[in-house]
Amino acid sequence: MSFELYLPRLDATPFAVLATHGPGDRLDLVPCCFAVDGPGTESAELVTAVDHKPKRTTRLARLVNIERNPAVTLLVDHRDADDWNQLWWVRAHGRARVVDHGPLHSSAVEALAKKYPQYRQRPPAGPAVRITVDRWTGWIP
Amino acid sequence: MSFELYLPRLDATPFAVLATHGPGDRLDLVPCCFAVDGPGTESAELVTAVDHKPKRTTRLARLVNIERNPAVTLLVDHRDADDWNQLWWVRAHGRARVVDHGPLHSSAVEALAKKYPQYRQRPPAGPAVRITVDRWTGWIP
Repeated sequence: MSFELYLPRLDATPFAVLATHGPGDRLDLVPCCFAVDGPGTESAELVTAVDHKPKRTTRLARLVNIERNPAVTLLVDHRDADDWNQLWWVRAHGRARVVDHGPLHSSAVEALAKKYPQYRQRPPAGPAVRITVDRWTGWIP
Repeated sequence: MSFELYLPRLDATPFAVLATHGPGDRLDLVPCCFAVDGPGTESAELVTAVDHKPKRTTRLARLVNIERNPAVTLLVDHRDADDWNQLWWVRAHGRARVVDHGPLHSSAVEALAKKYPQYRQRPPAGPAVRITVDRWTGWIP
């Protein structure tokens, strides 16, 4: 399925949750910022990056997990505590790779900086995660 | 780790994301409401339930997934698009079971109704998911 249908919603939603396979059958989830790199093109990918928000370690579990098993899922959900009729969510199942330099890293950082003022002030310097989406599912009323 | 440390945050946060193992290596994520059933007791569990919010099917993937593999993760993340210093998240790794009737179902529904006005008006009628937490992790500045 094309990114295009979801693009306005993805652009307007600042946070997502990234799921990766931990060791054994552990499921690792982290909230993350994300963007679409190359919207409108065949090679469009979801991107996120390790930024300056505080973390316990630079060797993040999500990166180790992706190297072990590239299957990931990104969930973008819109929340409204008072009016549940406003809820929607979009879920991307895909394969991820970690890129820490070069044009695919720069391109991810640019896509993120375009979306987030915080990243324009301070671009994420850590590795980027690029997700090729195999399948979209979701609930949009 | 005890629930008690996180309880005020869990009580104040209406939405979480539940991850279950899909078929193969697919990671399934859904946003959900949740509550703590039995706070302050040894048998405290996280609970969520299938409610009246619209779904494509009553045989939800999350329930099928849990029957196949009870390893689940629930992520509770606080979002603030403007001030990233306000962000925090708490993650529970655990084992889930589906209960569709009896005292453990009623107790889950009561815990959810206590937290959500929407559930007081219309208690969730579908199966409940009860999660025994093995491990808490998170980022709280």
